[in-house]
Amino acid sequence: MARIRLGMVGGGNDAFIGAVHRIAARIDDRFELVAGALSSTPEKAQASGAALGLATDRTYDNFKDMAIREARLKSGIEAVAIVTPNHVHFPAAREFLKRGIHVICDKPMTSSLADARKMAKEVEKSDALFVLTHNYTGYPLIRQARQMVADGVLGEMRVVQVEYAQDWLTEAQPDDNKQAAWRTDPERSGVGGATGDIGTHAYNLACFVTGLTADALSADLQSFVPGRQVDDNAHVMLRFQGGARGMLWCSQVAPGNENGLALRVYGTKGGLEWSQENPNELWYSPFGQPKQLLTRAGNGAMGLQDALTRTPSGHPEGYLEAFANLYSEAADAIQEQGKKAQTLLPGVDAGMKGVTFVDACFRSSARNASWVSLA
Amino acid sequence: MARIRLGMVGGGNDAFIGAVHRIAARIDDRFELVAGALSSTPEKAQASGAALGLATDRTYDNFKDMAIREARLKSGIEAVAIVTPNHVHFPAAREFLKRGIHVICDKPMTSSLADARKMAKEVEKSDALFVLTHNYTGYPLIRQARQMVADGVLGEMRVVQVEYAQDWLTEAQPDDNKQAAWRTDPERSGVGGATGDIGTHAYNLACFVTGLTADALSADLQSFVPGRQVDDNAHVMLRFQGGARGMLWCSQVAPGNENGLALRVYGTKGGLEWSQENPNELWYSPFGQPKQLLTRAGNGAMGLQDALTRTPSGHPEGYLEAFANLYSEAADAIQEQGKKAQTLLPGVDAGMKGVTFVDACFRSSARNASWVSLA
Amino acid sequence: MARIRLGMVGGGNDAFIGAVHRIAARIDDRFELVAGALSSTPEKAQASGAALGLATDRTYDNFKDMAIREARLKSGIEAVAIVTPNHVHFPAAREFLKRGIHVICDKPMTSSLADARKMAKEVEKSDALFVLTHNYTGYPLIRQARQMVADGVLGEMRVVQVEYAQDWLTEAQPDDNKQAAWRTDPERSGVGGATGDIGTHAYNLACFVTGLTADALSADLQSFVPGRQVDDNAHVMLRFQGGARGMLWCSQVAPGNENGLALRVYGTKGGLEWSQENPNELWYSPFGQPKQLLTRAGNGAMGLQDALTRTPSGHPEGYLEAFANLYSEAADAIQEQGKKAQTLLPGVDAGMKGVTFVDACFRSSARNASWVSLA
Amino acid sequence: MARIRLGMVGGGNDAFIGAVHRIAARIDDRFELVAGALSSTPEKAQASGAALGLATDRTYDNFKDMAIREARLKSGIEAVAIVTPNHVHFPAAREFLKRGIHVICDKPMTSSLADARKMAKEVEKSDALFVLTHNYTGYPLIRQARQMVADGVLGEMRVVQVEYAQDWLTEAQPDDNKQAAWRTDPERSGVGGATGDIGTHAYNLACFVTGLTADALSADLQSFVPGRQVDDNAHVMLRFQGGARGMLWCSQVAPGNENGLALRVYGTKGGLEWSQENPNELWYSPFGQPKQLLTRAGNGAMGLQDALTRTPSGHPEGYLEAFANLYSEAADAIQEQGKKAQTLLPGVDAGMKGVTFVDACFRSSARNASWVSLA
Repeated sequence: MARIRLGMVGGGNDAFIGAVHRIAARIDDRFELVAGALSSTPEKAQASGAALGLATDRTYDNFKDMAIREARLKSGIEAVAIVTPNHVHFPAAREFLKRGIHVICDKPMTSSLADARKMAKEVEKSDALFVLTHNYTGYPLIRQARQMVADGVLGEMRVVQVEYAQDWLTEAQPDDNKQAAWRTDPERSGVGGATGDIGTHAYNLACFVTGLTADALSADLQSFVPGRQVDDNAHVMLRFQGGARGMLWCSQVAPGNENGLALRVYGTKGGLEWSQENPNELWYSPFGQPKQLLTRAGNGAMGLQDALTRTPSGHPEGYLEAFANLYSEAADAIQEQGKKAQTLLPGVDAGMKGVTFVDACFRSSARNASWVSLA
Repeated sequence: MARIRLGMVGGGNDAFIGAVHRIAARIDDRFELVAGALSSTPEKAQASGAALGLATDRTYDNFKDMAIREARLKSGIEAVAIVTPNHVHFPAAREFLKRGIHVICDKPMTSSLADARKMAKEVEKSDALFVLTHNYTGYPLIRQARQMVADGVLGEMRVVQVEYAQDWLTEAQPDDNKQAAWRTDPERSGVGGATGDIGTHAYNLACFVTGLTADALSADLQSFVPGRQVDDNAHVMLRFQGGARGMLWCSQVAPGNENGLALRVYGTKGGLEWSQENPNELWYSPFGQPKQLLTRAGNGAMGLQDALTRTPSGHPEGYLEAFANLYSEAADAIQEQGKKAQTLLPGVDAGMKGVTFVDACFRSSARNASWVSLA
Repeated sequence: MARIRLGMVGGGNDAFIGAVHRIAARIDDRFELVAGALSSTPEKAQASGAALGLATDRTYDNFKDMAIREARLKSGIEAVAIVTPNHVHFPAAREFLKRGIHVICDKPMTSSLADARKMAKEVEKSDALFVLTHNYTGYPLIRQARQMVADGVLGEMRVVQVEYAQDWLTEAQPDDNKQAAWRTDPERSGVGGATGDIGTHAYNLACFVTGLTADALSADLQSFVPGRQVDDNAHVMLRFQGGARGMLWCSQVAPGNENGLALRVYGTKGGLEWSQENPNELWYSPFGQPKQLLTRAGNGAMGLQDALTRTPSGHPEGYLEAFANLYSEAADAIQEQGKKAQTLLPGVDAGMKGVTFVDACFRSSARNASWVSLA
Repeated sequence: MARIRLGMVGGGNDAFIGAVHRIAARIDDRFELVAGALSSTPEKAQASGAALGLATDRTYDNFKDMAIREARLKSGIEAVAIVTPNHVHFPAAREFLKRGIHVICDKPMTSSLADARKMAKEVEKSDALFVLTHNYTGYPLIRQARQMVADGVLGEMRVVQVEYAQDWLTEAQPDDNKQAAWRTDPERSGVGGATGDIGTHAYNLACFVTGLTADALSADLQSFVPGRQVDDNAHVMLRFQGGARGMLWCSQVAPGNENGLALRVYGTKGGLEWSQENPNELWYSPFGQPKQLLTRAGNGAMGLQDALTRTPSGHPEGYLEAFANLYSEAADAIQEQGKKAQTLLPGVDAGMKGVTFVDACFRSSARNASWVSLA
């Protein structure tokens, strides 16, 4: 099937999440990036487009021009990824939605509740698909956890404990940290600091897995770092429809936490525990029985992940990236000096050693484990 | 920079490692698959080529035809990935090497020591690059471990403990398990069973990280499953040049082990421990000091991984695949029913809930944590 | 130094915590149990005293008689351990305190705030020591954590996350579960269910380690099990003097949690994490540096635990109990059938095998690792 | 039942394992230490006896005098614990065995194979019980593992992986380290260094759990530290009767390993994994099903541990020691200054805070989680 033509708003050089979206779009070979308004600074937009191999006439200085022209092209983009700071999500998405171009938008959806309401109306009016990249819902074992809850494996939900702890904003950031700068600026990020940046992920994940709808919350927000204008730590109690209760902690000032998104849910019949930093493992505790370690693609994995997982059991998904590292180093070597490239890539020597190893094992074992030289 | 034109030998429908190679080649957008001899069965070769979107005239029935024709094409392949059973590695590689086409070959390099020697000669004669995908050397923290040893951080090497345990061959496999079939057939796999399939990885990894060269080994091989023609468990003692000693265990009959490749190395000044199933963590124990947990891209990570890692600290590399799952589901939705597709993809409702959550946190906290409705 | 003469109130047959107190008193050989009012049921009090080897005239039917008589004896008890249900703590303690007998009392101190105030007055008036067994403060690494905070290693405290999760009350308990019965009866337990039984431990531990004093709390309590009269799950937000904030979760209905007391504290300079189920490990994360695993008696342990730890590094403290199991089995064997006892105790055969093993290792290695028989 | 009268040979001031034996003997209150030949140095023997509260006339200068006199006393010792360096085990044990006094002896049984054979004969002749403290067999979950194997839960045994790694001898020890001194002196320790000190434990544990008998071994021993006279690292391959195979690694030069005794056993139907540093957990992997985490006294624990475990599920056995710390600090306080002692012991203030906490939780929750002061 043909690849879907994709555009991107934001994601120029130096941006973090844009590159992630591009790799994600490429892994299964379903999209081809063909256009971009990659920065609000025209020079940077052009340079970024060139670096990504975009055609010059499809590298735009702003998202509005891109939406107008691409909608008119015969082979214009079919979908757009919006990966800008939060406050640009709505104005950008609107331009594409109203022209029938599918939108894949980073989260949180908007920087204000007013914009969120407007976004909902635009999506309502448009024929295009609107996808919000709450990416943590894409983990195979999160899908399994959701299905287990939906199937009643845990019984009636009682308690939800969710947290998302980081430490990178423990100290005031230098002014030139672009990631920190917009995330701690209410103009660009919205009223929420940690709550908006990561609390929304935690909240989304809890709702996604449990299928519960929250009724009300009580929140105690802090801005621990002097001068910070948004929250950097939040304690929240939640009440869900049907009687379940929850706690949510999000923090960007908790030293030792890199990206500590973790979810634990408990019902009348059992509990589930999952941590994003070890996404290949899901603990399942049927009440009164031993804890079970369910693994992605391993024993106890439900068939539903088949479409979502690309490696066999025990091959953590970073397996693909490690593999890709060899390919990319090979690409470097091929394009630079070919065979003579200085590289850590395994080659024929490693191959000789491996085959010699097997042969020696075989011979040693045949001689009652006597020592066999590998020279 | 232009993508490198890539061909593939093996890797047709049902194959495992071919798909892994293709994703790996795509992640950094450095290669484009343009030709293939994807199966030794012509019908399957054609069907597999079509499924991958290869042009009909570049879908070949056998690797020799492919090598001959691609070498003559103006825009023929520059590199080829060989992902067949072991005994085909050498005959296939030879055809491409002698025509100057770079070879990226799965491991073990060959199924016999005789073939390995011939391969070494072919590589010697050719101008092309030969890469053996000992993929576990591509993990960022394995590169760091290697560098730490090379920098003398561990002092002089003394003890190497390496193991690779699986359980998938604990019982005799049904005849229609293609993966098991060729891996346990000495004609296709070579004399090594577990030693060849996974022992070579373990041995390679130990040598890669420590920089040591083995002098001699003593091996005790077993074929525990009745009727099995190759080893399914092996115990090996190793002696390295310079005096270090090692043990290597590989097994495919150890229930509870999915893909348990693990390496521990100890020197006069410290130790390192790493497990493939948690590849984002490296334990470093300087003698006489507390153990440190070094993480990929986290505190203690050496700059050298920058080129090898695509996500920030705490984002295990499966993060990209989870993200890709959303993109691929979006592709399904776009190509099938657009906006009306039934899907688990987060959309505007999730977006509304997230923004409402942030707004409610802000208001609740401003009112001394009073309860705020989320309706 | 002579052992301290100890009495016990509560702790008769079937009781749980009384046996724990007795072992704890015995481990360092500082106390000798000489008197008891072990049950409020006279027959059970007598039977329990006999089982523990107490003299008949020092086995009392009630704590008041015991206090009166022991205070008059020349070699009467110097200290008493009170291990009854909560509502008895105060009336019992009062009788001993006013007679100058030291009191070691289980927690929570009383079942009501009114009793707590009275207890404070009695302690104030008495010359005797009053110790409340918040036993989790006795772990060596908890002492170290406390000292690290006090020394400023974490900087200024910001965030405290403490939790104590269990699952044993997930379902309504049968009436004959004595432990559950009094713990879920407000008359005996007080107004707090999970909050009183385990929440107090969590709160105490958080305050003990951080040295912080809480100013105010906001709590959302639940009684999930139908018919339960006290809380079985509680979500609490805490505000500490000086600006730190905390969350406390306690639950007895979280399947998969056995005794999940865990504390995480974060300051401006670093974080500490500890879990009661792995008490020999303390994670220390200095901001911007790799996480360190501090172990009891291992590298990074502060001298202050020397008095508190009885085994070297890496010997988890259950080591002593495993050792004790051999001693107790030996006692059984000695008292029952001596040498002929059927037992799993290692004996001379195990000894022969061990020495043969060492000898064989030595000989095999001397012969270049040739096989040596162990027969 | 009356306590068994116990004597001790070795274990004077500064010794490590003697104190462990004494605590182990005391935990269940089945023994009373009444006599000792605690050191081969008379002054030290006397001082050590006094420190332990032994009567002067039962503090002996050598084990032979003790055996002779105690055997004649009406209330002489019934059992003796021998906790000396290895080479004294046999001569000491002989004196007691021939007088019908039960012997509890530390391991390895003797320092030479010749002595081991003599010991076997003495035990044969004597009516007394001989117990060798292979203490790791006393862990409740080790007993369960053994029973599971015996019950056929794992099917037929195939692979045994056992290791015991430490790091304390990574560097040459100063001469005044008494523990290191005798353990690395072949005169006192025997031909085995690491093999004798810890390899025997590993070997014993593997045999105990699997019920297997080893037929033959192949061993490669090293003495990595210059000048060391005994092995400090050993690699061993094992062949068991019935066809199972094993590997054993023991090391005292592996930085980062404190007391890393670990056992993994695999059969036709499943696997078990256990590590001494986390003795409360046993991993059970039934082939083809999810891994289960069996815990001491938790779900999945077999009834057989009831006699061997003193605390409920989730209370790691260090729980008792932490509790004992409070008791011992209370003893200090009582014997030193009573109520006025400066101490970290929780007292009435901690009690007031706890009860206030529960009361505040209750009131806050009753007022819809409004903030309640804790002042």
